[in-house]
Amino acid sequence: MSEQKRVMLTVAYDGTNYHGWQLQPNGETIESVLNRELSGLLGESIAVIGASRTDAGVHSNGNAAVFDTCTRIPAEKISYALNQRLPEDIVVQGSKEVEPDFHPRHCESRKTYEYRILNRRFPLPMRRRDTYFYHYDLSVEHMRQAASYLVGEHDFKSFCSTAAEVETTVRTIYSLTVEREEDIIAIRVTGSGFLYNMVRIIAGTLIEVGNGRRAPEDMAKILAACDRGAAGPTAPACGLTMLGIEFR
Amino acid sequence: MSEQKRVMLTVAYDGTNYHGWQLQPNGETIESVLNRELSGLLGESIAVIGASRTDAGVHSNGNAAVFDTCTRIPAEKISYALNQRLPEDIVVQGSKEVEPDFHPRHCESRKTYEYRILNRRFPLPMRRRDTYFYHYDLSVEHMRQAASYLVGEHDFKSFCSTAAEVETTVRTIYSLTVEREEDIIAIRVTGSGFLYNMVRIIAGTLIEVGNGRRAPEDMAKILAACDRGAAGPTAPACGLTMLGIEFR
Repeated sequence: MSEQKRVMLTVAYDGTNYHGWQLQPNGETIESVLNRELSGLLGESIAVIGASRTDAGVHSNGNAAVFDTCTRIPAEKISYALNQRLPEDIVVQGSKEVEPDFHPRHCESRKTYEYRILNRRFPLPMRRRDTYFYHYDLSVEHMRQAASYLVGEHDFKSFCSTAAEVETTVRTIYSLTVEREEDIIAIRVTGSGFLYNMVRIIAGTLIEVGNGRRAPEDMAKILAACDRGAAGPTAPACGLTMLGIEFR
Repeated sequence: MSEQKRVMLTVAYDGTNYHGWQLQPNGETIESVLNRELSGLLGESIAVIGASRTDAGVHSNGNAAVFDTCTRIPAEKISYALNQRLPEDIVVQGSKEVEPDFHPRHCESRKTYEYRILNRRFPLPMRRRDTYFYHYDLSVEHMRQAASYLVGEHDFKSFCSTAAEVETTVRTIYSLTVEREEDIIAIRVTGSGFLYNMVRIIAGTLIEVGNGRRAPEDMAKILAACDRGAAGPTAPACGLTMLGIEFR
């Protein structure tokens, strides 16, 4: 054993077979697998702190997690050793030492999420895990116009499933783009932080704009309502991938 | 029952959990699932004829299969009814009536395959099914130069696992491109037809050029050798997707 250090992991996962990030009384989660395999690897009881506690079925290419350890293994080597023990649907992309008081949820960061819609006549088997299949026509142009209302600092209470649990529902969206490439419409959003289900409710609302049920300019009224009932449905988890997080 | 007609299906599948296209004494195949579900749907004993008998673990976005039926269901509607019965990793993309003597392997066609290499430091869980993970540096420029030797009509005996089984090993490649987009290198090849394992051997050989083990101009010698031993290894099945087939 050596002196205690705090290590940050960048964690990619296919969320299909997990009950989300956070520990659950029943069912495997990303956090429970990391805690178990890190404890086994390091011979200590390890409890990670995650940056984004993603929901069941949501994926990530680069979530962040920190933990404290007294191991002699250099922080940079932990990723390689840990990947030997992890299942194929969780792969650590890197590990490094951070300041002992660094907390991935209590510091300034920019998170980027992507919501992917497979918009074609029939589902494609190879994309069934990382897209939401939607076969009606969608106007990317209208979705873009609607998205522009959400950029900036706003009260996103209408786009939050459980507003009661947070101090404030004000958040900042730095960018929100809608791009079509062949059959896939990707909604990519970067923000200071996101409320519970916020990206999926944005996606569900943009889909209702895309299919013509709502007008792009309705977004202003939806924001102003500060009422979850004003926005569209929560789009399914499988379409959502947390792309990464940038700490300032 | 009505008059017999020949119907063509366009079939997409995730090949991960199948023993390839072709019927096998043991194990589920794409063909066995289609035969069983078509027979159940139409109330006749159906045996499909596939255009590309892809290997175990190989995927497709648009393989073709024909079968004869006396059903009254219009050919165009069969895709919808069949998809209700198929597992989520096989989805028919369309169905239509074709000439009674149309045979998808005995007619002129252009097939397009894509071999995808995930070229980065660590595997990405969401791409583990449709890419081959390779972490050493690859020169796309050298792979492109090497690929250029294969375009045109050539004897591809060096790129065929079981040349003894075919009349001729001469084939025509209409185009062969190598593109990198972020971490994915896509080798896309369109040809008049492909020998057994031909695309995977081309991919395996291009990887050896990309990593510097072979020079791009070695491709001329490899072709001229007409010997499987002259080419590189057969790249793993999971990286290969049959994109589609165009009948003339």
